[in-house]
Amino acid sequence: MKSLATYSAYLETALQQDHFPPTPANLYDPLRYFLKLGGKRMRPMLSLMACKLAGSSFEKALPAALAVEYFHNFSLIHDDIMDAAPLRRGQSTVHEKWNANIAILSGDVLLVKAYDQLANYDAATFQLLFKVFNQTAIEVCEGQQMDMDFETMTDVTEKQYLEMIRLKTSVLLGCALQMGGIVGGVSDADARRLYTFGEQLGLAFQIQDDLLDLFGESTQVGKQIGGDVLANKKTLLSISAKSAAAPNELKVLEAIENTKDHKTKVEQTQKLYTQLGARAYCEAKMEFHHHEALKSLEDMELPNSKDELRELANFLFTRAY
Amino acid sequence: MKSLATYSAYLETALQQDHFPPTPANLYDPLRYFLKLGGKRMRPMLSLMACKLAGSSFEKALPAALAVEYFHNFSLIHDDIMDAAPLRRGQSTVHEKWNANIAILSGDVLLVKAYDQLANYDAATFQLLFKVFNQTAIEVCEGQQMDMDFETMTDVTEKQYLEMIRLKTSVLLGCALQMGGIVGGVSDADARRLYTFGEQLGLAFQIQDDLLDLFGESTQVGKQIGGDVLANKKTLLSISAKSAAAPNELKVLEAIENTKDHKTKVEQTQKLYTQLGARAYCEAKMEFHHHEALKSLEDMELPNSKDELRELANFLFTRAY
Repeated sequence: MKSLATYSAYLETALQQDHFPPTPANLYDPLRYFLKLGGKRMRPMLSLMACKLAGSSFEKALPAALAVEYFHNFSLIHDDIMDAAPLRRGQSTVHEKWNANIAILSGDVLLVKAYDQLANYDAATFQLLFKVFNQTAIEVCEGQQMDMDFETMTDVTEKQYLEMIRLKTSVLLGCALQMGGIVGGVSDADARRLYTFGEQLGLAFQIQDDLLDLFGESTQVGKQIGGDVLANKKTLLSISAKSAAAPNELKVLEAIENTKDHKTKVEQTQKLYTQLGARAYCEAKMEFHHHEALKSLEDMELPNSKDELRELANFLFTRAY
Repeated sequence: MKSLATYSAYLETALQQDHFPPTPANLYDPLRYFLKLGGKRMRPMLSLMACKLAGSSFEKALPAALAVEYFHNFSLIHDDIMDAAPLRRGQSTVHEKWNANIAILSGDVLLVKAYDQLANYDAATFQLLFKVFNQTAIEVCEGQQMDMDFETMTDVTEKQYLEMIRLKTSVLLGCALQMGGIVGGVSDADARRLYTFGEQLGLAFQIQDDLLDLFGESTQVGKQIGGDVLANKKTLLSISAKSAAAPNELKVLEAIENTKDHKTKVEQTQKLYTQLGARAYCEAKMEFHHHEALKSLEDMELPNSKDELRELANFLFTRAY
């Protein structure tokens, strides 16, 4: 996938440039720092690819791509405060390196700067982009609130969980693609299909994340296996396991939850989730959304090659699983 | 001023309506609560008045007015976290009544909802409004950061202080007026004059606030006299007193700063600031900006009566001082 590297290098160059004034330093230095921490830049890349798919030059979508990346980083800076997370991409989070007040305020201004990027387009395009972007921004906040609410809820249904991950992570992928398509000039119907492609891909990706966290290879996943289980976090795996369990199996699940030894806890959970069919269920769900994403892509009426996005979708699901 | 009451009632009715979905309750309940705490609603009122001044019906400016009020409340919710303030308008702040995470996130979504209001206008008007609004939003964040930075700075100059209050509070008044004018259809030049009117009025108002805090009547100011002095807060009064003081007077100022007894501390400060001419200096500064505001209003080319805004400007300076 040579083209992915091209987009990625183009975005990195754009992001390494200084987009913020020098002062107040305590407001903008955290943003300079955070935006250079890296990451896959998947969202802005989707905007560029969608714009190119529409037959336009991908560079035209840069402001939309930056808006999405700024928004994503704004939400990470604030989420990190809420999660009291010390690290992000192996480096100190903003509230750790500076403090919570600075993290709140620099996050706020980054959100405003995201809007600023959208204003680079003409009035009509801007209004179209703004509608998708603003709706998405609201949904991401709602998803984050649901995620926080789930921490103290005993029974989270599969439907609630899927809606939470859809809002918290998938809609922004849809938004990134739809905005790229709008900039490139696709029809309304194709813009919606691009959105659906991203939304469904995001759902599949998040379910894959849950699966990888418990059944992945530690070296390839890049983090400790079983982190979600050790934190007793609700995931599609834990929810579907609980829902498939008979009363006596529920008791075993509960006992495992209270197991102190990490290795035992993870191994027992892997075994039971597999026995209960939760693993297979989640794999099927992941496949389903992956398939839905590709279907939406194929439905697009554009005559241009969809190879890039198709490859990306398939590439994402060759992760260490 | 019958008209002020009319605008105020109209705005209260609009704000008491429910503009937010029922769920997630932890995201939207805090906003319902906070927006109903009241306040003078000065900013949205300015939008309505500017729109009427332009010869349009003031109701047309409601979305712009709500955008400004939402933005103002978003910044209050986040500022309250940063200041660890337990009360706002005599009631619990959002982070006190719920928690800091909820206050961060509901503040975030309120900012997005402010943008949403602007999208109620046609594409061309929306783009004009957006430019003023976004520039202002960035400036308010910068002003808040400067204010936080000042807390740990030993020497803040008058110029820095004035720039901080201009950014933190005045530009939003300018924005409220300019947006109302844009909705009403004023010329670009008059839109800028409306902005200047608000900006200068805001500066005068903030300097008056500093003066009232030390020299006002407790019953009319509605809070304890000398709060800024007791907190050793930097204000135009303290900065100009320090700059006017001879070396021996500087020592006296320092000694007063370290005085433990509240009553003595406030009385001695009042006396010394008056002797040093700081009080008179601030009064003159306040008058200057008040005058600049009125001048900008008079310069407007619109044939319509400017009485309402003129009265409002004068009304604001009949506060217990």
